[in-house]
Amino acid sequence: MSIFRSARLKKEMTPEAAEFTSSLSHDYEILKATVWVNSVHLRILYEKHLISREDFEKSLKTLKEIIENPPKELDPRLEDIHVYIEQAIASSSEYAAGMLSYGKSRNDAVATAIRVRAREHLLETALSELDLVKILLEKAREHAYTLFPIYTHLQRAVPATFGFILHSYASKILRNLSNIINLYSRVNLSPLGAGAATGSSTEIDRLREAQLLGFEDLLENALDATTSRDYIITLLTHLLNSALIYSCLAEELILYSTEEFNLIEIPDEYTSTSSIMPQKKNPVVAEIARTKMAEILGEVVKAASIMSRQPSGYNLDYQQVTPTLWKAFNEIKNTSRILSQMIEKIQVNKDRATEKCKGIILLTEIAEKLTQETGITFRKAHQLCGELSILLEKNMLNEETFKEVARRYDVNNIEYQRFISWFDPYTIVSSYKTVGSSNPEEVKKMVEVDIRRAEALREWCNDTLERLDKLFKLSMMI
Amino acid sequence: MSIFRSARLKKEMTPEAAEFTSSLSHDYEILKATVWVNSVHLRILYEKHLISREDFEKSLKTLKEIIENPPKELDPRLEDIHVYIEQAIASSSEYAAGMLSYGKSRNDAVATAIRVRAREHLLETALSELDLVKILLEKAREHAYTLFPIYTHLQRAVPATFGFILHSYASKILRNLSNIINLYSRVNLSPLGAGAATGSSTEIDRLREAQLLGFEDLLENALDATTSRDYIITLLTHLLNSALIYSCLAEELILYSTEEFNLIEIPDEYTSTSSIMPQKKNPVVAEIARTKMAEILGEVVKAASIMSRQPSGYNLDYQQVTPTLWKAFNEIKNTSRILSQMIEKIQVNKDRATEKCKGIILLTEIAEKLTQETGITFRKAHQLCGELSILLEKNMLNEETFKEVARRYDVNNIEYQRFISWFDPYTIVSSYKTVGSSNPEEVKKMVEVDIRRAEALREWCNDTLERLDKLFKLSMMI
Amino acid sequence: MSIFRSARLKKEMTPEAAEFTSSLSHDYEILKATVWVNSVHLRILYEKHLISREDFEKSLKTLKEIIENPPKELDPRLEDIHVYIEQAIASSSEYAAGMLSYGKSRNDAVATAIRVRAREHLLETALSELDLVKILLEKAREHAYTLFPIYTHLQRAVPATFGFILHSYASKILRNLSNIINLYSRVNLSPLGAGAATGSSTEIDRLREAQLLGFEDLLENALDATTSRDYIITLLTHLLNSALIYSCLAEELILYSTEEFNLIEIPDEYTSTSSIMPQKKNPVVAEIARTKMAEILGEVVKAASIMSRQPSGYNLDYQQVTPTLWKAFNEIKNTSRILSQMIEKIQVNKDRATEKCKGIILLTEIAEKLTQETGITFRKAHQLCGELSILLEKNMLNEETFKEVARRYDVNNIEYQRFISWFDPYTIVSSYKTVGSSNPEEVKKMVEVDIRRAEALREWCNDTLERLDKLFKLSMMI
Amino acid sequence: MSIFRSARLKKEMTPEAAEFTSSLSHDYEILKATVWVNSVHLRILYEKHLISREDFEKSLKTLKEIIENPPKELDPRLEDIHVYIEQAIASSSEYAAGMLSYGKSRNDAVATAIRVRAREHLLETALSELDLVKILLEKAREHAYTLFPIYTHLQRAVPATFGFILHSYASKILRNLSNIINLYSRVNLSPLGAGAATGSSTEIDRLREAQLLGFEDLLENALDATTSRDYIITLLTHLLNSALIYSCLAEELILYSTEEFNLIEIPDEYTSTSSIMPQKKNPVVAEIARTKMAEILGEVVKAASIMSRQPSGYNLDYQQVTPTLWKAFNEIKNTSRILSQMIEKIQVNKDRATEKCKGIILLTEIAEKLTQETGITFRKAHQLCGELSILLEKNMLNEETFKEVARRYDVNNIEYQRFISWFDPYTIVSSYKTVGSSNPEEVKKMVEVDIRRAEALREWCNDTLERLDKLFKLSMMI
Repeated sequence: MSIFRSARLKKEMTPEAAEFTSSLSHDYEILKATVWVNSVHLRILYEKHLISREDFEKSLKTLKEIIENPPKELDPRLEDIHVYIEQAIASSSEYAAGMLSYGKSRNDAVATAIRVRAREHLLETALSELDLVKILLEKAREHAYTLFPIYTHLQRAVPATFGFILHSYASKILRNLSNIINLYSRVNLSPLGAGAATGSSTEIDRLREAQLLGFEDLLENALDATTSRDYIITLLTHLLNSALIYSCLAEELILYSTEEFNLIEIPDEYTSTSSIMPQKKNPVVAEIARTKMAEILGEVVKAASIMSRQPSGYNLDYQQVTPTLWKAFNEIKNTSRILSQMIEKIQVNKDRATEKCKGIILLTEIAEKLTQETGITFRKAHQLCGELSILLEKNMLNEETFKEVARRYDVNNIEYQRFISWFDPYTIVSSYKTVGSSNPEEVKKMVEVDIRRAEALREWCNDTLERLDKLFKLSMMI
Repeated sequence: MSIFRSARLKKEMTPEAAEFTSSLSHDYEILKATVWVNSVHLRILYEKHLISREDFEKSLKTLKEIIENPPKELDPRLEDIHVYIEQAIASSSEYAAGMLSYGKSRNDAVATAIRVRAREHLLETALSELDLVKILLEKAREHAYTLFPIYTHLQRAVPATFGFILHSYASKILRNLSNIINLYSRVNLSPLGAGAATGSSTEIDRLREAQLLGFEDLLENALDATTSRDYIITLLTHLLNSALIYSCLAEELILYSTEEFNLIEIPDEYTSTSSIMPQKKNPVVAEIARTKMAEILGEVVKAASIMSRQPSGYNLDYQQVTPTLWKAFNEIKNTSRILSQMIEKIQVNKDRATEKCKGIILLTEIAEKLTQETGITFRKAHQLCGELSILLEKNMLNEETFKEVARRYDVNNIEYQRFISWFDPYTIVSSYKTVGSSNPEEVKKMVEVDIRRAEALREWCNDTLERLDKLFKLSMMI
Repeated sequence: MSIFRSARLKKEMTPEAAEFTSSLSHDYEILKATVWVNSVHLRILYEKHLISREDFEKSLKTLKEIIENPPKELDPRLEDIHVYIEQAIASSSEYAAGMLSYGKSRNDAVATAIRVRAREHLLETALSELDLVKILLEKAREHAYTLFPIYTHLQRAVPATFGFILHSYASKILRNLSNIINLYSRVNLSPLGAGAATGSSTEIDRLREAQLLGFEDLLENALDATTSRDYIITLLTHLLNSALIYSCLAEELILYSTEEFNLIEIPDEYTSTSSIMPQKKNPVVAEIARTKMAEILGEVVKAASIMSRQPSGYNLDYQQVTPTLWKAFNEIKNTSRILSQMIEKIQVNKDRATEKCKGIILLTEIAEKLTQETGITFRKAHQLCGELSILLEKNMLNEETFKEVARRYDVNNIEYQRFISWFDPYTIVSSYKTVGSSNPEEVKKMVEVDIRRAEALREWCNDTLERLDKLFKLSMMI
Repeated sequence: MSIFRSARLKKEMTPEAAEFTSSLSHDYEILKATVWVNSVHLRILYEKHLISREDFEKSLKTLKEIIENPPKELDPRLEDIHVYIEQAIASSSEYAAGMLSYGKSRNDAVATAIRVRAREHLLETALSELDLVKILLEKAREHAYTLFPIYTHLQRAVPATFGFILHSYASKILRNLSNIINLYSRVNLSPLGAGAATGSSTEIDRLREAQLLGFEDLLENALDATTSRDYIITLLTHLLNSALIYSCLAEELILYSTEEFNLIEIPDEYTSTSSIMPQKKNPVVAEIARTKMAEILGEVVKAASIMSRQPSGYNLDYQQVTPTLWKAFNEIKNTSRILSQMIEKIQVNKDRATEKCKGIILLTEIAEKLTQETGITFRKAHQLCGELSILLEKNMLNEETFKEVARRYDVNNIEYQRFISWFDPYTIVSSYKTVGSSNPEEVKKMVEVDIRRAEALREWCNDTLERLDKLFKLSMMI
């Protein structure tokens, strides 16, 4: 009979009902966190003279053993990790075990353990994403001068460099990650001591518990504390934004590595071939990466749908929300790691890329130049260049046809030779002068700034993880 | 080096890339189906004299062994189940293994195996849901006369019986399941022989292969055949409709079992208590059942989002679609099973339910009666009863107040005693005469018809499963 | 004061509350359907001698006027269309208006009206999609011999024809549409007469009402009848499958029309240019079409999430479900229409497409031929061709290198000249002989069959629409 | 012919294609923002001597007129708002109009205008939500001593007060809103001057443009700037979290206002009645509020699905993302407003609520007290109380039965009278002493703090809106 069950309910759950409602398959994720929560609660009980030093020592020893030799499998007849831990402690100190739920219910304990684990996942995932940022920035620096076309509507639009494109992705990821300190604060609030929903008449010191667990503040209102999973939606969306970036990046790499675009080469180690088509080199890693947005969006939908229409106290529905978060963290960790490895080895087909930066793709900037040098409006210059684009495509642009068109727009002060000399992609890219442009000098500047930003974030993540680790270790000592 | 890989690609995948793109963790679901597909392909090769009888025998023996002793774990360095099977056959007949991909690619083979497994899941899940239908219908019959209020907007609306409510759920599930033959047809089309995307110049007889695998027809166009996953969306939605019904049913049971409604009693075996609140009896099975809609909706979102924007040939993204289907089938199977068990044992608090069928809840039908007996319009009768409802709630309805109100509506021909005699829920429920009403006689009729319908569906499912099983066993014999 | 409200509730809704809960902005969609439902109900009342012939005539005349001069705007203080209609009838016959809710509530009436409108939308949308099927099939016939590469993993995979690709899309759409008769049956069930939730004691003849409204059968159980929206999920998914096809088709057209693929030309009328890049030709129609999957998936999520956790009687939440369906129908109608127009005018760059069908893309079939002619296994032939693909890409395939490789695979009986002669895409495409292959003869056969199928479906849709229209007109006559 | 179109594309879009791709129906939302963007761009052109003072004055006058007399309807043949504005300016100054796209494309202009409008919506919506917070806090103060049961698993769990529950909702909303400054920063970045994707060679000063538009910083990398919509996902999720809170709150109000719970009274003005059930009082406002989570989740799915797989430059797909944001803002504004009004007038049925706080619901705290006073562990006390709960429910708890049970747990030092005296809900609620408990004194403290927090947020929102308004007005002056 379950330890909680005996008096009130006359029958044990059926095995199927127990399995259907058990959270054990996902409780491994919070095993360490739950141990921590309980060790802190035991310490408070000890400090308040509610359990003896001996009971505290014995039970702490049991918790330590769980951490050192975590159970391979949890008995499926147990409801959840809390039952497992209370039973384990009971084997060394029945009194301590009997006091575990004094001023603490599963509602606040599990809410706390999930936050403890979530903040750790958040930091670890950010570190993995920062590795990718670093690779992107280093490659961006390496390719700061590598001409590369920008596509809009998948049509060649304007000339730039491969480094500029890679930097744009690094920027997106970094902007998302730079929210991490704020996200960490949203997660890092302690529900512990809220009890079932209202707090309690016990001597439990919520602030001290929070401090021992490394929390910045309390989720104060006890009812709010036991049922708030808003941060899960917020974290999932943070991860969704990451996934969106990776899915777009993967799409772009797949396109550029087709024989038709032929702008980059994905290394063999990240491709597979066909069981029957001997010539194939399939960008399978990028394809799987491309699906991650969908997978995380699915988790967002699950979490939000489950949480909808929950009246205010705890309901078991919440149990099904948590695994969506673990899944999303793991997906983003793995995806950012594999993308780092793959992108590091990507090669650019420089000749081809330069070729793609020639011709009509230059006309936007040439229209700007026409405006600058002739005083016609940009709209006129744009129309003039529109006409020239047709001549260019038909290979019919020459001095005569140029003059004929130019005359119709009252442009008389540009020599054809001078005009033609503008058609050099490198010159054009170097002429960009707005802040944030794809001018190589600008890109290099942005890269250096972002490398420092990424480094600062990495340090913050590492420091925070270390601090948490120290606190955890302290919690395992008398 | 992978058997497919050697010539074209110079480097093996990195272990992380292999793990990131491998489908092995989900390939167990299609192990048997893939064996079947390969056995059929080998048979065709043998019939067309492309492999010898001996090679056929040896390779079939290997396949049989895989079925009898399925591998505990698949080597994670293998890309997928197809590699595993080709290697296994190679150990007994290298020639047969070498011909496995003649006229057959992974694109059509996996598309076929998924359909083989999906149709089986569809039938098995339907059988589990039909068990629930049966329980609901039997309980509906048992409670055909058990008065029970119907709520709309969670306000007491009209009197009915518990049997009528249970029958309404059985109706919903049965209507969804009655689409199964149509669904089965949508799944039961063979892509096999479509090759990589275009068919082939080989002697492979697609129709014979289809027949040996129990398919009704071909997915004819080979390009369509290798990439169509439309049926997955269709099956997922079929399951989503099931989940919606179960989530509503669970919600309703939770409400009725609250102390406040107190209309039913959920058996102890399907509830849990609290770790700190000794008096609690929490309907946890129903709570978890209630989340299933969200979980399956999440899978729909994943599947649809992944499939969007796929240009026409196979892309590895499709690999990530399949697990959504297995997950959804398993959830619905488990949920319908546990609901069957729980609902069978639910008790109705009959006195309380009858009480809730008295008073103002009867006014709709009393307004109908007023119309029938006095000739005032229903709208007038409705307004008159609206006024009486206020008196009733204030305990102020008596002969005098009744007459006063009635007079204002020119209703003079109804005696107060007669009027008051209408306020009997059982009489009112028995007076319903439209088809499909909650009149117990009507409910009993509907139940009998639906029991026969459910039985017919069950037979069809069982017969089909048996037929498939026979075909599979035949495929394992020379 | 609202006509329903007067007695029970002492205060009118606040204007904001009325607007917040009103369905009027979407009720236009069901204006005609609601008129029909009410005309049928009035007819039954008349047939049962519950209203006089004169009242029936007057109220029918009012309904006719609403159809002929539908209101430009509905008064936002009205709750919904039902209030509007009851008030309109009251102006010609107060008695008939007063009896409109006799044996009929808004719960069953609106459930009926939505189904009446949904089945019409279903047929109209199918007709629009069948137009697209027709265009695709005609273009497929036109391009049955137009060589075109098939891509898998966006890498050139196997040679085929443009007609084969177009036929694959027609097949997908047609398969989805061929479910329409089944879908129509799921929609075409009458909830009318179910009343608020339980049926009634009135003389209302549900079967006759159903027949007058063109329904095939009843949604029998009255509680089920008033709350079942399962068919909305089913219809939405039907439309989601359409959207998925269009989103993939649009993606493919966008890719093929890039300068890099350069396989097709999208007509100018379906593209736009840039405000500053004069050379741009952006495939904007295809881009918007590509987003439709996402838009309809969003509606599925709304509908399913709303319907989840609804206890059994009607709740106003259902009101928010209906607009998702109208939106999805309109999107698919518009998208299929615009795609029809655009695809009709798409041009293939035949030289380029033929070029893309040469070289290594042919190796799969060449490996089949090697197997056929030399007796080596396909796996060996596949590896041999893998090696050749590298030589081919390096432009190093010649008699000597070929022989050197062939020798290593014990292939000695193939002359180099003969081997080289296999490298002709048209010969290879014509050599396909499996059912459903991209062999032009096979494609032409499939096209002819599908044209007939599409025609049959179109006739069924048109016939059904006509039959409904006749019934509606009859309902407006005495 | 469109002003952009003339040269490059030979044919105008078909009317259907124009309508299908036009964003005009949603461009009203960004009319003012687009005017602002253009006025700033014109000012920079003027400052850089690229247009004359006269041209600047004329064009500014035109923009002012658009703001003062916004067009009732935009010509559907226009592609979008940008074409409309360029044409309008052309009518007063052709030169200025012709320079509008100098160093500025629609890609950066629209990205900027959406952010300008989004930050305004964000502030306005927060103000509306802060109104609701205020009402909740005032009602929480009013009901700080109003006993009210807390339900977990919809079973009575622990006693608290209605004020405590209301405060928990205020806390949730306030926590979500307290992120607004951070959200505002994520939105408030300027893409302007990024041009089509790479910046330009023009003299445009991006920082000055950003400053004139009230932006805090640049979206620096120009490619990133034109395509980043990450903040839309972030804003949508912020709103989703709001919607989740409102949907839960609505659910809770609906439950409590049922006849069965009967704990609160929703005012008549926020309910409707039935067309046929005269006694009904349906909580329709709460029901519609309850669906908002689903509606916003649907928009999240749309936005994320569309943005997935976008290669890096602008694609028209992004156009379909923006309306999801406007829709979500409007829903949350309206829902928070109507909930404020309704909640202000909600009445508590105090006697009933107090009654529900008596009996077994007190056992958790009584178990704590037993632990405190007798030294048995909490687990023992919990089991003891479990046994008592059965006696209580059977009305069999008396001195004798109490002692019999207590003895079995070795509890001998508690007198029955003393034990029974603990069964007072108000005493128990007042005995809570953990931080954040439902002790009325604690709730009152929390309310005061939160009132100040809400006030500070309101001030910040108002100040920011004012500052933006001033900047906008300045931008309209020479």
